[in-house]
Amino acid sequence: MQSTPKGNRPHIAVFGRRNAGKSSLINSLCNQKLALVSEVPGTTTDPVYKAMELLPLGPVMMIDTAGIDDSGDLGEMRVKKSYEIIRKTDLAVLVIDNQVEFGKYEQKLLDNFNKTNTPVVAVINKIDLAFDKTEVVDKLQREYDLKPILLSAESGQGIEELRDKIAEKMPQDTEEAFIVGDIVNPGQTVVLVTPIDTAAPRGRLILPQVQTIRDILDHDGISIICKETELKASLAALKEKPKLVITDSQAFMKVAADLDEDILLTGFSILFARYKGDLEIFLRGAKKLAELKADDKVLIAEACTHRRQADDIGTVKLPRWLRSKVGSSLEFEHVSGREYPENLSDYDLVLHCGSCMLNRKEVLSRLREAEEAGVAVINYGMAIAQLHGILDRALKPFPAAYRLWQQQK
Amino acid sequence: MQSTPKGNRPHIAVFGRRNAGKSSLINSLCNQKLALVSEVPGTTTDPVYKAMELLPLGPVMMIDTAGIDDSGDLGEMRVKKSYEIIRKTDLAVLVIDNQVEFGKYEQKLLDNFNKTNTPVVAVINKIDLAFDKTEVVDKLQREYDLKPILLSAESGQGIEELRDKIAEKMPQDTEEAFIVGDIVNPGQTVVLVTPIDTAAPRGRLILPQVQTIRDILDHDGISIICKETELKASLAALKEKPKLVITDSQAFMKVAADLDEDILLTGFSILFARYKGDLEIFLRGAKKLAELKADDKVLIAEACTHRRQADDIGTVKLPRWLRSKVGSSLEFEHVSGREYPENLSDYDLVLHCGSCMLNRKEVLSRLREAEEAGVAVINYGMAIAQLHGILDRALKPFPAAYRLWQQQK
Repeated sequence: MQSTPKGNRPHIAVFGRRNAGKSSLINSLCNQKLALVSEVPGTTTDPVYKAMELLPLGPVMMIDTAGIDDSGDLGEMRVKKSYEIIRKTDLAVLVIDNQVEFGKYEQKLLDNFNKTNTPVVAVINKIDLAFDKTEVVDKLQREYDLKPILLSAESGQGIEELRDKIAEKMPQDTEEAFIVGDIVNPGQTVVLVTPIDTAAPRGRLILPQVQTIRDILDHDGISIICKETELKASLAALKEKPKLVITDSQAFMKVAADLDEDILLTGFSILFARYKGDLEIFLRGAKKLAELKADDKVLIAEACTHRRQADDIGTVKLPRWLRSKVGSSLEFEHVSGREYPENLSDYDLVLHCGSCMLNRKEVLSRLREAEEAGVAVINYGMAIAQLHGILDRALKPFPAAYRLWQQQK
Repeated sequence: MQSTPKGNRPHIAVFGRRNAGKSSLINSLCNQKLALVSEVPGTTTDPVYKAMELLPLGPVMMIDTAGIDDSGDLGEMRVKKSYEIIRKTDLAVLVIDNQVEFGKYEQKLLDNFNKTNTPVVAVINKIDLAFDKTEVVDKLQREYDLKPILLSAESGQGIEELRDKIAEKMPQDTEEAFIVGDIVNPGQTVVLVTPIDTAAPRGRLILPQVQTIRDILDHDGISIICKETELKASLAALKEKPKLVITDSQAFMKVAADLDEDILLTGFSILFARYKGDLEIFLRGAKKLAELKADDKVLIAEACTHRRQADDIGTVKLPRWLRSKVGSSLEFEHVSGREYPENLSDYDLVLHCGSCMLNRKEVLSRLREAEEAGVAVINYGMAIAQLHGILDRALKPFPAAYRLWQQQK
């Protein structure tokens, strides 16, 4: 049995000074010996990601930040590392050691949680030892509107309360976002065009395709899956025109040509721009893309580090298309995996992959950072649609975004 | 990006005495520092599984058996552990240390490779040190028909030859098995009925469904995916009857009732009995199932260790159905994950899960062991079909198996 995709699990990160009991708190939450618990401060040296079931929420990704704070205060490297984790954190748990002072470390974290709209649950741990934190409790309530949970990870006291508080504070949209469920009615048909290119490993479908099929099933729709070469046969097999056709962006051109104008057509990448990102921000990116000049500088960012094919979309095709349109002096920089430049203001445009491996919070953090640096950003699929002149058509299934795009152009 | 499912990757296990250079050989094969290499014998204590690309084969699962042989000869525990790995090994690499004797250890392994039809590539490692194994080379050729590759994992000499030999000796059927590709013609439609039950994690499809959709795409077919509640709407949307309907076995009854008799219907579990197991062996299991008596003893074996739901198929539903048919004194034993009893002859029937997490070789090993113990074996889905009287219909898409079943009944 496979589990819920990583990017689909709410990310819960546990912060706190060394030896505050982060790992044992995670153990207690999950009723299993997962994290390495030790009396020696700073046992783990890197954040540890662990996919698990956390009732009543269900599947989550738990992040143990042990090691980041090994000297007790928040040095520059540690600040950076913490903030990197907060960028993808849907909900933070801040563990305060009953025996240790509450100070700059906690305040800096709380300020960053506020700044990034990251909901937080505060916990005062080790209350099995003499409790002397009434002052901290007051301060948290007064300055941060937080009512900390008094807990002993050791004895289990307070764990149930923590579990419930996490479920209560978890943002709803990490659970209830639609891919196409909001525009497909029960019993309607959706054709999914999924080219099998040389990059597709044997025996599987790529994650956005699987998630889209599942979303259609969840909303009582009917999916028809075919390659671009069988699209005509698929349409011919149906009594009526499908409600919607969704294609991989690489086949956009061919599919748009094969399909009557009155059939709604969009791309997986546009669905995922909506589901995991922000269509409005990407539309500003599309405008910028249309206005790129010969000496501009473009950052191409890819969230995963897969082996590049000879005709790789990010490293080969997109630069080629863009240069043939704008001019060969167009400058490109590439980053992949966890890398993402701190200073984005050097770039004129960020071209980002579909982010199937990132959770929504991290995509939104990357978009926010681009906005703050005044840089436009667009994802691969929308860029391809725009470059090939079919973004208009691909936006029609989404009336609000379509109107916005028409006004903005 | 997701990778090829584990069960779909050819499994290559590297055997050899401690310090023969297994880990460094794997490193050299893969051009990356993957395994932990050390001068101290017996660095790793458990077999290490590593999914990787091995050119020219593609995605494989590499198994480093270090630690199993830490005392140099093959004690009983180590024999057992080695054989457990061989059960799932599609191809074995036996590393012989140029500096150490060739003896009982290697002979026992080679005999087991022979017995289990496991192809093997022999390697004499460390030939950068004085080479004195001509006698061993002769013996391997004479007694085992093996021409060992002379190799230095250290310098890289012989690595390319090893790579090619692995690709050459890898059994073809780990790569070319069909799920439905052999019975669906280009442009034909296949309806896949995929109930979304409470056990299905959010945002995904279970692996057999994904693999079936992919197999249909690979063979130019058209998949129509719906829940059992939208089956009628799906059929109504099509101009012609589909070539085939495939259902999750839990919805077999409802789907069979909703579907005209002249439409071919089968189950994912029957497809996977063919793809990963042996339909013929399972049909003998179906016969035994029909003849079960009140005091018989049934082993229920599940390959994964997922959390059990209240209405779990293996622990709740199947025992309930069987007892209501045969009598309440029917005895059940349950195993899950890697557990699988050595002595199967105590049981009258083995009921095995669909094995989506096992590779084909391990499923076939489990079946062979049952056959050798004289015990019938059947998988969940075929058992459900048989218990509900629809196995006949579910076999019709496969004429040879259907005939066999009619003769056998």
